[in-house]
Amino acid sequence: MPRYKLTIEYDGGPFVGWQRQDNGPSIQAALEDAVAAFCGERVAVQGAGRTDAGVHALGQVAHLDLADEKPLDTLRAALNYHLKPQPIAVVEAELAPVDFHARFSATWRRYRYRILNRRAPPALDRGHVWHVPVPLDDGAMGEAAAVLVGRHDFNSFRSASCQAPSSLKTLDQLDVRRDGNEIRLDVGARSFLHNQVRILVGTLQLVGRGQWTRRDIEAALEARDRTRAGPTAPPQGLCLMEVRYDLASGHADDAEEASDQE
Amino acid sequence: MPRYKLTIEYDGGPFVGWQRQDNGPSIQAALEDAVAAFCGERVAVQGAGRTDAGVHALGQVAHLDLADEKPLDTLRAALNYHLKPQPIAVVEAELAPVDFHARFSATWRRYRYRILNRRAPPALDRGHVWHVPVPLDDGAMGEAAAVLVGRHDFNSFRSASCQAPSSLKTLDQLDVRRDGNEIRLDVGARSFLHNQVRILVGTLQLVGRGQWTRRDIEAALEARDRTRAGPTAPPQGLCLMEVRYDLASGHADDAEEASDQE
Repeated sequence: MPRYKLTIEYDGGPFVGWQRQDNGPSIQAALEDAVAAFCGERVAVQGAGRTDAGVHALGQVAHLDLADEKPLDTLRAALNYHLKPQPIAVVEAELAPVDFHARFSATWRRYRYRILNRRAPPALDRGHVWHVPVPLDDGAMGEAAAVLVGRHDFNSFRSASCQAPSSLKTLDQLDVRRDGNEIRLDVGARSFLHNQVRILVGTLQLVGRGQWTRRDIEAALEARDRTRAGPTAPPQGLCLMEVRYDLASGHADDAEEASDQE
Repeated sequence: MPRYKLTIEYDGGPFVGWQRQDNGPSIQAALEDAVAAFCGERVAVQGAGRTDAGVHALGQVAHLDLADEKPLDTLRAALNYHLKPQPIAVVEAELAPVDFHARFSATWRRYRYRILNRRAPPALDRGHVWHVPVPLDDGAMGEAAAVLVGRHDFNSFRSASCQAPSSLKTLDQLDVRRDGNEIRLDVGARSFLHNQVRILVGTLQLVGRGQWTRRDIEAALEARDRTRAGPTAPPQGLCLMEVRYDLASGHADDAEEASDQE
């Protein structure tokens, strides 16, 4: 029974999130329906990151098993045909080892968060940026971000509903860069807690406004208490850019669980 | 009677184009309606480039006259308030000299055309790129583009309905760059003929496919015949990025008229 790895792009706007739910259309269900329409098999499509409602992806990864081996170009093209007119595209389909798991084998995930920092609301990028109309000091945000990089207990930076058994995580990358009116935060780690990136962004934004200092970020981290961090930034600014695997190593055997939810 | 210069961003998708028309909503009419809702005055809003249906703008420029002087922040914010929920935003409002004309004073315009060059259809950038599923040789496109830069008779590269009296234009910039799956063409000139950028892109794309050579581009240019150039690329890949003015010089006095239509 061959296992396939899919690389998937989507606009999260019209969806309740990656995961199949009763309250509306999900990306997972759309993919599972497309697989069934293509070959008649009802199989589970497992994603690397369970993105929340409104969160986008350029490089989501998922896996699925089919009874027979299909030509990879045919599989990709057929899924895209059946996904129409939904804003979901299978960018690549590959054969994967039978023990490959999109979620548990992942060794690196990178998200990008986009802030439109100007007085006027977004027009061309509406639904793809967080509009912050007051001037943000991106230099101060970048300095404060450095406090958060490394291995920490991120209990202050996860949603109350996060079900991960441990809030100890290693944040490898948190870069803040301005390009004109846009501030981009690139955030990389093996895995993330629920809403971790959005709470990190919502908190750093307080530094950008001059309301918080680098010291407040340190205090929030040390408090290990969600009420001590800043607000959760809205979903539409967030995009899952990339998931990496060390295919030789099979399942992740690191002490940190390789689950992920944003 | 003060004259105002507006810098405007819009998603051209839901509009019949910049110019007010009987057959649907236009960006010009939306702005004129917003001005009337703000101050009760029905005035003409003149744009630098009459973008066609589906063409976007990050840096369209327009001017209008109002009876009284308004605080610039108030004008910008009020227009954005009344433009909601349409995907149009006034990014900046400035006072301009009374002889400033958004269209006729313009000395430089830059458009960007985005091609998504991969097998899978667009999902996140749907409506903002032209999807070309066959591999394009961007290097060959860039070499052929060099033939088109400079002062030429672009009669082969304008729509049959173009009303400009002369098709002699100076193309200052035609850069072709690839970034992963995306090919971006940046095109700069004092002014353009109707559909000129889209026909240039549609023709260079034939070079990218290997169906045309640089020599065919030269022959198309020399023919001065629309039927000898390639197809018109679709509107959704095109965006008016920037319009520049030499405010000291007032109206353009160059032999080339400073009109523009894309």
